[in-house]
Amino acid sequence: MAFGKGSDLISISDLEKKEIEAVFARAKKFEDAVKAGKVKRTLEGRVVASLFFEASTRTRLSSASAANHLGARVIGFSGIEGTSVQKGETLSDTIEMVDKYIDAIFIRHPLDGAARLAAEVAKHPVINCGDGSNQHPTQTLLDLYTMRKEFGRIDGLEIALVGDLKYGRTVHSLALALNHYKVRLKFVSHPSLKMPDYIRKEVSNPVAETERLDIGKCDVVYVTRIQKERFSDLMEYERVKGIYKITPGVLEGAKKGSIVMHPLPRVDEISRTVDATPNARYFQQAGNGLFIRMAVLDAVMNG
Amino acid sequence: MAFGKGSDLISISDLEKKEIEAVFARAKKFEDAVKAGKVKRTLEGRVVASLFFEASTRTRLSSASAANHLGARVIGFSGIEGTSVQKGETLSDTIEMVDKYIDAIFIRHPLDGAARLAAEVAKHPVINCGDGSNQHPTQTLLDLYTMRKEFGRIDGLEIALVGDLKYGRTVHSLALALNHYKVRLKFVSHPSLKMPDYIRKEVSNPVAETERLDIGKCDVVYVTRIQKERFSDLMEYERVKGIYKITPGVLEGAKKGSIVMHPLPRVDEISRTVDATPNARYFQQAGNGLFIRMAVLDAVMNG
Amino acid sequence: MAFGKGSDLISISDLEKKEIEAVFARAKKFEDAVKAGKVKRTLEGRVVASLFFEASTRTRLSSASAANHLGARVIGFSGIEGTSVQKGETLSDTIEMVDKYIDAIFIRHPLDGAARLAAEVAKHPVINCGDGSNQHPTQTLLDLYTMRKEFGRIDGLEIALVGDLKYGRTVHSLALALNHYKVRLKFVSHPSLKMPDYIRKEVSNPVAETERLDIGKCDVVYVTRIQKERFSDLMEYERVKGIYKITPGVLEGAKKGSIVMHPLPRVDEISRTVDATPNARYFQQAGNGLFIRMAVLDAVMNG
Repeated sequence: MAFGKGSDLISISDLEKKEIEAVFARAKKFEDAVKAGKVKRTLEGRVVASLFFEASTRTRLSSASAANHLGARVIGFSGIEGTSVQKGETLSDTIEMVDKYIDAIFIRHPLDGAARLAAEVAKHPVINCGDGSNQHPTQTLLDLYTMRKEFGRIDGLEIALVGDLKYGRTVHSLALALNHYKVRLKFVSHPSLKMPDYIRKEVSNPVAETERLDIGKCDVVYVTRIQKERFSDLMEYERVKGIYKITPGVLEGAKKGSIVMHPLPRVDEISRTVDATPNARYFQQAGNGLFIRMAVLDAVMNG
Repeated sequence: MAFGKGSDLISISDLEKKEIEAVFARAKKFEDAVKAGKVKRTLEGRVVASLFFEASTRTRLSSASAANHLGARVIGFSGIEGTSVQKGETLSDTIEMVDKYIDAIFIRHPLDGAARLAAEVAKHPVINCGDGSNQHPTQTLLDLYTMRKEFGRIDGLEIALVGDLKYGRTVHSLALALNHYKVRLKFVSHPSLKMPDYIRKEVSNPVAETERLDIGKCDVVYVTRIQKERFSDLMEYERVKGIYKITPGVLEGAKKGSIVMHPLPRVDEISRTVDATPNARYFQQAGNGLFIRMAVLDAVMNG
Repeated sequence: MAFGKGSDLISISDLEKKEIEAVFARAKKFEDAVKAGKVKRTLEGRVVASLFFEASTRTRLSSASAANHLGARVIGFSGIEGTSVQKGETLSDTIEMVDKYIDAIFIRHPLDGAARLAAEVAKHPVINCGDGSNQHPTQTLLDLYTMRKEFGRIDGLEIALVGDLKYGRTVHSLALALNHYKVRLKFVSHPSLKMPDYIRKEVSNPVAETERLDIGKCDVVYVTRIQKERFSDLMEYERVKGIYKITPGVLEGAKKGSIVMHPLPRVDEISRTVDATPNARYFQQAGNGLFIRMAVLDAVMNG
């Protein structure tokens, strides 16, 4: 079935290119409406569940804001403290029950595949807001939307993915979703944090892999956080972290008009002094999450 | 005073039979309206406090959904983490204060009698969502509503209460509320978990007590969770738990058209394979909580 | 810029006297509207963030109620559990991001100066709901509003501040805000909890300092909590606490028509038997928080 009324959004690969483009068109319409203070409340009278079984600020708040902007009400929880999960209830039972109280579900869960399971149980649309290391499709959509908005197109861009390419759910999804477009990719990482083969071999666009932070020809520099926990040797961690840190100095060698993106939260992968440069786009990127989530929610609830 | 505008709902015994029936009629109206997507927002502009001093998913979310469906806004907390209770504020002071900000209160509290105290302090209507081992009247209403909906009547039914009849707040209230109707009851439990005498002697309907899971003539099999903490001997717990577990095999001996209910969350009192049988009604039962809570909230706020 | 559309409210000293009076006039209008059940929903379609990085019941719930009464929707968190702060995100980044999802921000934070920082980062109005030991301007406004409502004026009142004057954010702000009026002040405290010099020397009204709870001529007795943690000697704490406890006996010596206020939560600085006296005004005071927060939010969002 085509993506629309009653659909779930579990994986970015659930969407065909024209469906992705339709989400962008709808998001643009909502972006204009929000900025003009004239949002049509297409979800007035509906109730949306926000079931965050795990920590999140950005995704949870932008999803809640999206629902509220459209007139829907939001109920739910953030964290399993005080939920029946602690009494031993299964995810399946929790979803089967909540499904009776609401008209759509945002779910985040620490386990891979949890969102797909929820979608199988629930009669109402389920939107995956991140399940373990698996998928976070609205993040991928907002990443693509940001590129498209900034350059007017995605085809033809040269895009560097920088940092932790091994464990980063975000860059895996993004690399695969870019198969819908004709781009050049550059994977920039320490050998211990390289893009895994099972992703690498699914990528249809030309890829250059490099250890050096060599971004002179890139239109987009997509930076991810390198997590201390990934390293057994802390000195090695400090060294690697230092190599990939984006600073105004690093950006002196960047292509004119290029942008720096990051899924946030950042810790210190991007120097604070970069915020004031014309390249910084990570906060706008986060802001685009609102419009994308409005678009997705409106699509699955109203068609 | 008759149950209506300005009333509290603290105990199921606050309601006369005709008031219970009026709640059912109102709940049915709301059920139809929700299913048709045409709920009149009779609480637009009102604010409801959801004060959950203790864990709950089902009751909290369905109460919040009920309020939102009717157009009310919900503020509050779930769990005392981050509330002034932790600074030593009494329940009475907390209620006296919150009462100034809202138009009605849903309260859950770990202590028996807390809801009654809250109702005495608050000028606005208070709905008890469970206070300790004491009362949870909207649960009892939704239990009765489910039976009535499934059989078109409650009079004449044979109803088995199964599992932990000693500590179960739910089955105590239900057994007493059934005094309003002419039913036959069967109390099925291990001797160590028998219905207490102080409840037993208040029951006006005929009762059979049995240790065996003998449900062949029952229209309703109402199952409750047996909690490990009640047993000092874990092997005894495992044995007892096994005896009362509902499985498709057990249901082969059940009366045609009979239903299985459970207040949820279940752990493994009911086998997952029962979900697909025509007897399973526990998720619909949970779903009825939405309509009952809409009816109760609308009744105490609008009359 | 004058206080109005687009303004932040970070410190009570951001407001000139006529701006304070304008907030009172607006609060009175909202108080009448709430009591008549006829609030104009001047914030319909707007979304407000409630970012409570630290525990609060009263301020959080009354702020949420204020926003909802005016038709705005509220998103946010209470406590940093489950937020990206725990992943190491800076306050500045969190605000920069949330600012993209909402139309105004309520913030409470354990660190002095956090609210000012948030206001510098956010494009939307920021209302300080308490930052460390620094400022809590809506509390000061509701304190003044309560006096004005009770006496029809503030000029000419004799006001005792009782208890912990050393660490109490509330009494510091109140003492300074009273510079806008002609009152007589009495600082009643144990020597170890005296009003600090840096506040004392900014106070323009005449002040009497005393260790005895001598309130016979006072129109307002403003009581604060004495925290056990402030004392190294627990017996000294018990003794001091006892001296400043307000009881019906103490109030026998009070001026006719005088009122007792407290920012709440109280522990036992005010005997429960005082609640029934004609002097008790602390719950009404808390209730006024709703009208003040409606007034402030409406002012900064609508002008």
